[in-house]
Amino acid sequence: MSDDLCFLTATELAKLLRAKQVSATEVMTAHLKRIDRLNPAINAIISMVPERALKAAHAADQQYAKGEEIGPLFGLPIAHKDLTPTAGVRTTYGSPVFKDNVPTEDSLLVERLRNAGALMLGKTNVPEFGTGSQTYNPIFGSTKNPYDLTKTAGGSSGGAAAALATRLLPIADGGDFGGSLRNPASFCNVVGFRPSGRRVPAWPNPHPWNTLPVEGPMGRTVEDTALLLSAMAGPDPRSPVAINDDPAQFREPLESNVKGKRIAWASDFGGLIPVDRAVVQQLDRHRSTFENLGATTCRAMLDLTGADEAFRTLRALIYAIRCGPLLAEHRHQIKDTTVANTEIGLRATGEDIARAETLRSELFHRTRTFFEEYDFLALPAAQVPPFDVTQEWVHSIEGVEQPDYLGWMAACYLITATGHPAISVPCGFTEAGLPVGIQLVGKDPDDLGLLKMAYAFEQATEHWKRLPPVA
Amino acid sequence: MSDDLCFLTATELAKLLRAKQVSATEVMTAHLKRIDRLNPAINAIISMVPERALKAAHAADQQYAKGEEIGPLFGLPIAHKDLTPTAGVRTTYGSPVFKDNVPTEDSLLVERLRNAGALMLGKTNVPEFGTGSQTYNPIFGSTKNPYDLTKTAGGSSGGAAAALATRLLPIADGGDFGGSLRNPASFCNVVGFRPSGRRVPAWPNPHPWNTLPVEGPMGRTVEDTALLLSAMAGPDPRSPVAINDDPAQFREPLESNVKGKRIAWASDFGGLIPVDRAVVQQLDRHRSTFENLGATTCRAMLDLTGADEAFRTLRALIYAIRCGPLLAEHRHQIKDTTVANTEIGLRATGEDIARAETLRSELFHRTRTFFEEYDFLALPAAQVPPFDVTQEWVHSIEGVEQPDYLGWMAACYLITATGHPAISVPCGFTEAGLPVGIQLVGKDPDDLGLLKMAYAFEQATEHWKRLPPVA
Repeated sequence: MSDDLCFLTATELAKLLRAKQVSATEVMTAHLKRIDRLNPAINAIISMVPERALKAAHAADQQYAKGEEIGPLFGLPIAHKDLTPTAGVRTTYGSPVFKDNVPTEDSLLVERLRNAGALMLGKTNVPEFGTGSQTYNPIFGSTKNPYDLTKTAGGSSGGAAAALATRLLPIADGGDFGGSLRNPASFCNVVGFRPSGRRVPAWPNPHPWNTLPVEGPMGRTVEDTALLLSAMAGPDPRSPVAINDDPAQFREPLESNVKGKRIAWASDFGGLIPVDRAVVQQLDRHRSTFENLGATTCRAMLDLTGADEAFRTLRALIYAIRCGPLLAEHRHQIKDTTVANTEIGLRATGEDIARAETLRSELFHRTRTFFEEYDFLALPAAQVPPFDVTQEWVHSIEGVEQPDYLGWMAACYLITATGHPAISVPCGFTEAGLPVGIQLVGKDPDDLGLLKMAYAFEQATEHWKRLPPVA
Repeated sequence: MSDDLCFLTATELAKLLRAKQVSATEVMTAHLKRIDRLNPAINAIISMVPERALKAAHAADQQYAKGEEIGPLFGLPIAHKDLTPTAGVRTTYGSPVFKDNVPTEDSLLVERLRNAGALMLGKTNVPEFGTGSQTYNPIFGSTKNPYDLTKTAGGSSGGAAAALATRLLPIADGGDFGGSLRNPASFCNVVGFRPSGRRVPAWPNPHPWNTLPVEGPMGRTVEDTALLLSAMAGPDPRSPVAINDDPAQFREPLESNVKGKRIAWASDFGGLIPVDRAVVQQLDRHRSTFENLGATTCRAMLDLTGADEAFRTLRALIYAIRCGPLLAEHRHQIKDTTVANTEIGLRATGEDIARAETLRSELFHRTRTFFEEYDFLALPAAQVPPFDVTQEWVHSIEGVEQPDYLGWMAACYLITATGHPAISVPCGFTEAGLPVGIQLVGKDPDDLGLLKMAYAFEQATEHWKRLPPVA
């Protein structure tokens, strides 16, 4: 029986736990056993605290038995992304500089999920400092794709996505700057939601007003993802920007009538960037799914002028803030791409940054206006299917050479620059059996509307149910 | 009778208008007449559209007579700051570059205030591009202080403050980057409220995520200021950051029990910057006012390390965004200080900006922590009383030479850098009869709490009732 629990959705598990039909200890035990058995093959969870997790599960059961109130994530095992600090649990950021770093304080995210009842069992793997959508680092190595162990799980929330797909965890958190929630979700046949910029407050955070990097939820289903978001969102005095909606809205039923919703259909990303034909084909197979749901689809694409420059410049400035202070002492321990991006940021001029801000503002308003005509924009979440895990980045797409390690990540990062929320939902598989994700972009800050559309698509397709061979 | 209407508060006027005891036409006529008579001496309102205003007032009366719904500012005359675009009405930004500029679209602020029932009669004077807290420009000249026509009204919302004090307008809008709502309010014995960074959405806005420059309300009383804020605040899709509280909260009664509120008292700005002794003395006379209200005061000051550098660097970046594109063609038409600040911004490095962002983040959290110990911080709103109107800036304060035209504005701009809301409330007069304002700083984003404290102080002192000689 124990393994069966791992195949339930987080929403189902939470219900059983609340009804006391299963205990937090049983759920934790089942997941720990499964991790023991399957994690070595995929290397998704890279630090483990099983004793602590079991103790916490036992304590949770006792408290609930005594009649104490429980949170919406009561008893759900979780592993936090290794970019977020966890008190007393090693947090490396995937960097040798921090290989022995044990924080004394939890991040706000970790604190919130714990308060909501989630039980941490470890940390999930990341690229060094989250740089690049390929999850490998010199401390823990690379995370494998559960659908094909020779392929990458994507990144930077690659450990989280692979663990979810392998049914090692029912929920997982991540972050998304250039696609770090959407890319690995699309590579691992799970859901990754980049919420509106101010939805999930982040602390600690060296650039608390900046809404380009966000934290957000991942799940196997849209409903699970929304459930997790409900525990992440909401204002906190530690964030000067967080939106003050009631996050309980994300626990309401997602069922909705999407009839008449207008979808701009850009399975080829409007030709702006190269997209592998297997990805385009798989998306196009599902255009009729949206039509059958009553939505209208129309081939159209947002004008992304300036998005590339704005994103690259403002991203480099964030690197200057985050990693600039490390260069003097630790440069030799940091990978080339991180050093290069940090230096671009340090050396940029105010004129560069001013122009990037101007381009980004124009883009925001252009996107806002676009969404007066359309309700959603449908795009590939990644320009390629999962690629070889030994390859750091994709050098060529449909014959088009990529300028650098960021090039092949444009399908996500150009959308980041718009300032609008986006979700990657399972969209089926290539002929080689590799997952493809569809990226739906919605209005800022209507995260609930976007989740509802994604839910309707998921219910009509159920691609998430296809298990990876490793599971 | 006509002039009497101009001496009522906006709140009183709004009630009479709503009760149909007075018509919008009567109110408008009274204000236009008074402006005709008194504005030439102070030069507060620099563009006028009297026919349009009277026509709008007449139309408003007719619509209300027919039973149409009215907004909270129904029938109140207003003049908008000449930094905000008004469709069909000349908008110069105080710059010869824009001396014939007639926008085709209203700003969001203007649109909102019109929708709330306010009736525009003209524009209020500003320094060129709002640069510097002294209101003069080559198009319209300088605005005089109604309490002493040889002194400046402060700035950059100097026209607004002087018009309010002279009872030419019941309400006026402004903006505040380095103190532009607080400084002129303190110089003109009115109220200027710099709300939390996300309270009032701004559009058009070339840096829509940035919360250092804000728009906000001015009034003769705190209640009037709150009434105006209630029509300015609230989310709009054109702003990616606006807080989504219900702005109607600012129309609730401001009466509250401030017993036990903890006030950090820094009438001398904690010694961090020089403050004219006349200003310190006037603030200190009112320490007992707070104590008598039941609040506790304790000599204490926030640690403002890094605030100066952060503000100056990030302000320069905003100048690079706003004015950078103008330099190539119009440099010779722009004043030296604006050019210099723009060039500092254009030439800054990413390293400078990254450090400024880091300092600002640290300051935000330090301020937040400070406000766990105290409810409010009491400071001078300006380091000096109003000074000679022919002097561009204050060169020396209590014998301390000022480095540049920004130096004497530090009492406000250092607080801007904290990311917390602040209000300037009339605090009495120097022996020379010049107004002094007290600056109260509160928790972000608890604007209502700050307004309530300011209201309690105002009710206990009533300095706002002292008319300027010119009135």
